[in-house]
Amino acid sequence: MKVLLIGATGTIGKAVERALSDQHELITVGFRDGMHQVDLGNPASIQRLFETVGKVDAIISTAGLAKFGPMAQLSDADFDLALQNKLMGQVNLVRIGQSYVNEGGSITLTSGILSRHPMPGSSSIAMANGALESFVRAAALELPQLRLNVVAPAFVKETMAMMGMDSTHGISAADTSKTYLAALSGSHHGETLDVTDHL
Amino acid sequence: MKVLLIGATGTIGKAVERALSDQHELITVGFRDGMHQVDLGNPASIQRLFETVGKVDAIISTAGLAKFGPMAQLSDADFDLALQNKLMGQVNLVRIGQSYVNEGGSITLTSGILSRHPMPGSSSIAMANGALESFVRAAALELPQLRLNVVAPAFVKETMAMMGMDSTHGISAADTSKTYLAALSGSHHGETLDVTDHL
Repeated sequence: MKVLLIGATGTIGKAVERALSDQHELITVGFRDGMHQVDLGNPASIQRLFETVGKVDAIISTAGLAKFGPMAQLSDADFDLALQNKLMGQVNLVRIGQSYVNEGGSITLTSGILSRHPMPGSSSIAMANGALESFVRAAALELPQLRLNVVAPAFVKETMAMMGMDSTHGISAADTSKTYLAALSGSHHGETLDVTDHL
Repeated sequence: MKVLLIGATGTIGKAVERALSDQHELITVGFRDGMHQVDLGNPASIQRLFETVGKVDAIISTAGLAKFGPMAQLSDADFDLALQNKLMGQVNLVRIGQSYVNEGGSITLTSGILSRHPMPGSSSIAMANGALESFVRAAALELPQLRLNVVAPAFVKETMAMMGMDSTHGISAADTSKTYLAALSGSHHGETLDVTDHL
């Protein structure tokens, strides 16, 4: 399959690239690096990406920015980042990208465990994640020509280590990538795939 | 209790007002009508409302705009309406309003059944509803001094009739208001209260 991987230069993205590169033709996209660049917060940039790349069999997004921090310290701009980047960036990948996916193909987005298992500091991230999961469930009903799903990663071991957290209970990026493979090759549609269910 | 009811002039809001007015001191707020006015899409308008009203024991919101329609026909502005009005309008009621709620008080927002049981045409509404439910779950962890919940109404009989839909399986606004009473007087915190569970 020809797979457009957006967020390919991130921790999860790199692991998904490694997991797919043997079997599939990958087009990697990052904010600065990768074969193509995209600014998820800018719909015109998403439109330009698809016009450049053309038709693909699958879109996988492991991208999207949102800020972690105590709610009292999150600014209007921080909430807006979660909405315009992680949420609408990926919603716009569906709205714009659906015309560029070959029939029978798939789009897989990324939310995260904090929508259903939050922790203090996750209010804006949980909001974006919950929005993505409900959007996917609803939008799938209007997209019979493809499959649309969202992967909900748990805490990624490598990210936790990088942030100086105890990573004992983290899930490695390589293990996380298995759920994206399941979404790509399975028959799910409109579903939230928890990484912890696919280890 | 002194209860600030935002969206008091809507179908659900009116029923909540009727259900509460015997026992509680109600301050009604609408976009155009009510004792006070607020534009949920404008944080400065929300700030002014609380400065005018002062401290209350509870905030109930039955307000928030979002557009129903086929995803292919929803514009960027339609998605933005759901995010800035129904979602961030209510999130900002929490961010700003929490300082105006007396200790032990509560804030109750409104999402809707479409976050978990969508239908075609509900992509932007489901998105906002899912965001609200996850936001409430996460934000509650940082608000130990009050209770924060969200009520998820099903289809309201009166609204369905008004829209020319078959309202046989709708739930009346009066029955819907019972869940707001449960949120106001119960011990829930960080929860999504389904109207269908409180009939």
